[in-house]
Amino acid sequence: MRFKLEALTEQQLQEVHVATLELLAEYGIAIHHVPSRKLLEQHGAVINGEIVKIPAELVEMARAKAPASFAVIGRNPERTIRIGAENEPVLGPAAGTVYVMDLERGRRAARLEDLRNFLSLSQSSEYVGVACAGMLEPSDLPPQGKHLVQMQETITFSDKPIIGLAMGKNVSEDSITMAHIATQGAAEHYILGIVNTLSPMAWDERMLEAIWAYALKQQPLVITCCSMAGFTSPTTLTATLVQNNAEVLAGIVLAQLISPGTPVVYGNTSTITDMLSMNLCIGAPEYALLSTAFAQLARYYGLPFRSGGGLTDAKELDAQAGIEAATNLFFTLANNADFVLHTMGVMESFLSISYEKWIMDEEICGRILRMRKGLGGLPAQAVDMIGRVGPSGHFLDQPDTLLNFKGHFFRPSVSDRSNWDGWVAKKKNFQQTAREIWRQRLKNYIQPELPAKVESELKKYIESKLG
Amino acid sequence: MRFKLEALTEQQLQEVHVATLELLAEYGIAIHHVPSRKLLEQHGAVINGEIVKIPAELVEMARAKAPASFAVIGRNPERTIRIGAENEPVLGPAAGTVYVMDLERGRRAARLEDLRNFLSLSQSSEYVGVACAGMLEPSDLPPQGKHLVQMQETITFSDKPIIGLAMGKNVSEDSITMAHIATQGAAEHYILGIVNTLSPMAWDERMLEAIWAYALKQQPLVITCCSMAGFTSPTTLTATLVQNNAEVLAGIVLAQLISPGTPVVYGNTSTITDMLSMNLCIGAPEYALLSTAFAQLARYYGLPFRSGGGLTDAKELDAQAGIEAATNLFFTLANNADFVLHTMGVMESFLSISYEKWIMDEEICGRILRMRKGLGGLPAQAVDMIGRVGPSGHFLDQPDTLLNFKGHFFRPSVSDRSNWDGWVAKKKNFQQTAREIWRQRLKNYIQPELPAKVESELKKYIESKLG
Repeated sequence: MRFKLEALTEQQLQEVHVATLELLAEYGIAIHHVPSRKLLEQHGAVINGEIVKIPAELVEMARAKAPASFAVIGRNPERTIRIGAENEPVLGPAAGTVYVMDLERGRRAARLEDLRNFLSLSQSSEYVGVACAGMLEPSDLPPQGKHLVQMQETITFSDKPIIGLAMGKNVSEDSITMAHIATQGAAEHYILGIVNTLSPMAWDERMLEAIWAYALKQQPLVITCCSMAGFTSPTTLTATLVQNNAEVLAGIVLAQLISPGTPVVYGNTSTITDMLSMNLCIGAPEYALLSTAFAQLARYYGLPFRSGGGLTDAKELDAQAGIEAATNLFFTLANNADFVLHTMGVMESFLSISYEKWIMDEEICGRILRMRKGLGGLPAQAVDMIGRVGPSGHFLDQPDTLLNFKGHFFRPSVSDRSNWDGWVAKKKNFQQTAREIWRQRLKNYIQPELPAKVESELKKYIESKLG
Repeated sequence: MRFKLEALTEQQLQEVHVATLELLAEYGIAIHHVPSRKLLEQHGAVINGEIVKIPAELVEMARAKAPASFAVIGRNPERTIRIGAENEPVLGPAAGTVYVMDLERGRRAARLEDLRNFLSLSQSSEYVGVACAGMLEPSDLPPQGKHLVQMQETITFSDKPIIGLAMGKNVSEDSITMAHIATQGAAEHYILGIVNTLSPMAWDERMLEAIWAYALKQQPLVITCCSMAGFTSPTTLTATLVQNNAEVLAGIVLAQLISPGTPVVYGNTSTITDMLSMNLCIGAPEYALLSTAFAQLARYYGLPFRSGGGLTDAKELDAQAGIEAATNLFFTLANNADFVLHTMGVMESFLSISYEKWIMDEEICGRILRMRKGLGGLPAQAVDMIGRVGPSGHFLDQPDTLLNFKGHFFRPSVSDRSNWDGWVAKKKNFQQTAREIWRQRLKNYIQPELPAKVESELKKYIESKLG
């Protein structure tokens, strides 16, 4: 099935682009990092304190240098992902969560054990293409060397391409080096970093250091903003687009100046603010609108696009979680996002990751991928088959049914299709069924083999850092 | 925002059309009604027992005669709906349900009191355009005259255009006459009838009698099929399309022969069968696929289209209900369905109507209509505003925010946007919040005034029928 969603007309796209260039050139953006300001100045930007005014030529340069697609290898080269151009979307799990939820124990601070569990779910998921070292913040690790443990666990529990940590120079460089060890330098790109703007109109130092670290090694960067319309960006959504576009393009310009040709993904997860509670509303319909417009902008710039996921503001796995995750995942895939973070597990406006939600999100992805596959062609003998079966007949014993139903019909893993009595007899609700599935998955999980050489090199590296 | 969904290429559309004409002309369809067969024969169809082979010319004739759009008046003429062409979708509630669900009393046989309650919710809904006499089957009414009571209650509790009952000659004729009384003959079309094919490849007598009754009075007919792929239609979905198309077109041909120019809506709610339980799966992703293809066929024929709704197979208001209703309502509105039954309240594969689900479905409609509205234009002063606020500023006190956020930002009625502590303190889950809303709505409900003349004429008519 083909989906074509348009939040902006061609003319509006142009308007947003022109306004963005004006904003960058006339008002500029705060760049809280001396080397970044210097580099931009050397290439024609105008500096005024921490404000950098970026001329249109630099934006055009960045568009021209950034590749339309690229590959990232995993420590198992068969797991290599391709992001951008006509490739299928690469789906990643929730990231940056602080709390963990499950049906039995409720909501609690995330721990190392949870990171291992979610890395196992990630590794064993047919939908997830990457391993993410920052899925959650393990509260039981000491701050010193925490990122080293997170990276080590990620490499140990998964052989998929890695989303590294990208918070300041040291964390970024360690992540890159460890991913390089894991893949034994087998390919050009072996890790992805994700950096975020500081809305409105700023980039903070730790993020700029991360851009330098990744770009200097030519490792791909997902450059994203997440503003809150009404609070950290304008209420008028098209104006929010202009601001977001300016922020992200400034990051892309910098990456291309540091190291031309560094792969970048044009990202956005901006949405509205709930004006009563001042909370971020990632489950809002406005999210889907902004995300659609950003997909159009990314295509306009010829860049790979990141947005979406199973986003919800729900606090438990209820109907709201279902509505919001299904809507956002549908838009994500219908907009052909090239790279998706937060596909699985995210709850509570990015704050939590949930075991049961992860299983639900996988089911939703399966549903949408079934739709993308489409109806299939019309078999040559279709009219004859229908005519032969005829009125008051049935198709249960037709070869068409016996041969095809398993391939044609999607079967949900959690959702229930029994009749009322069957459902009552089952004595298991949606959440309980999801719980059973993730527990079974973890029980059956087999860790991918880690070559001894990689293991010892990683150990040595960590010791050298902690020593 | 513009949505363009395509399940069929132009070539596939043609293929389905050609295969349909072949199926109707070569194999035919069972028409279990002597006058219908006679009429079809008089116009060139070939009869063989109960099978009627319909030549392509009759299909072309029907396409040419059926109007692309039409209006239906309510007893309050301001409630007039316009179906087809460029008009907004007309949304109707669940229909034909047998059970009622609410959080407090669970699932139980539907009663007259429930019909009144749902008619009140329907009347007070900003989304629902019609009143439906057959939303549910009241188990506490005697069979004799039941339809007369249902119609009377519908006219009493709502002043919106009526979806009448359409099961056999008497029920249909009584429905039409009573709607005519209610609207005092103020317009050409004052009631809609909904009829369904008997898949595979048949029309049963009671439905054919309904087509005659409505068409003879030139009242609009929604002509629908609901086959179960793998059971009552082929597993291969494009073959199911061909069969469905043939069934629906046969009904449309008949309506146009009975009374040329009778408004018809081309309808479909076919989906797949769960091959383990043999249940109908209205929440399946294949539903959305088939529905998209049917929308394309309807446009190809230049006919108004019916499909979709808040369809789910869930047995309680859980995440499955959220996923399935949101997905199906999104496709319904993205496909620009002209008329929608089952928009609100439907649960358990059409078997139940739920009070809480009704409220959830209204919220989902609100979400999708917000998306349809789009981002809005770029204000002239957008760049200056962003530049003036600048880095480390915020937009809370900007005129853009103070003036616009209420109009721009959708606020959900049931879904929660508070933070964790706020949600815990609220002590109300999704279902409980929905329950509070419908109870409040019923409490505040004010019945629309019923003119004394209409009331007494209806009473007289019912007495004459029961006498």
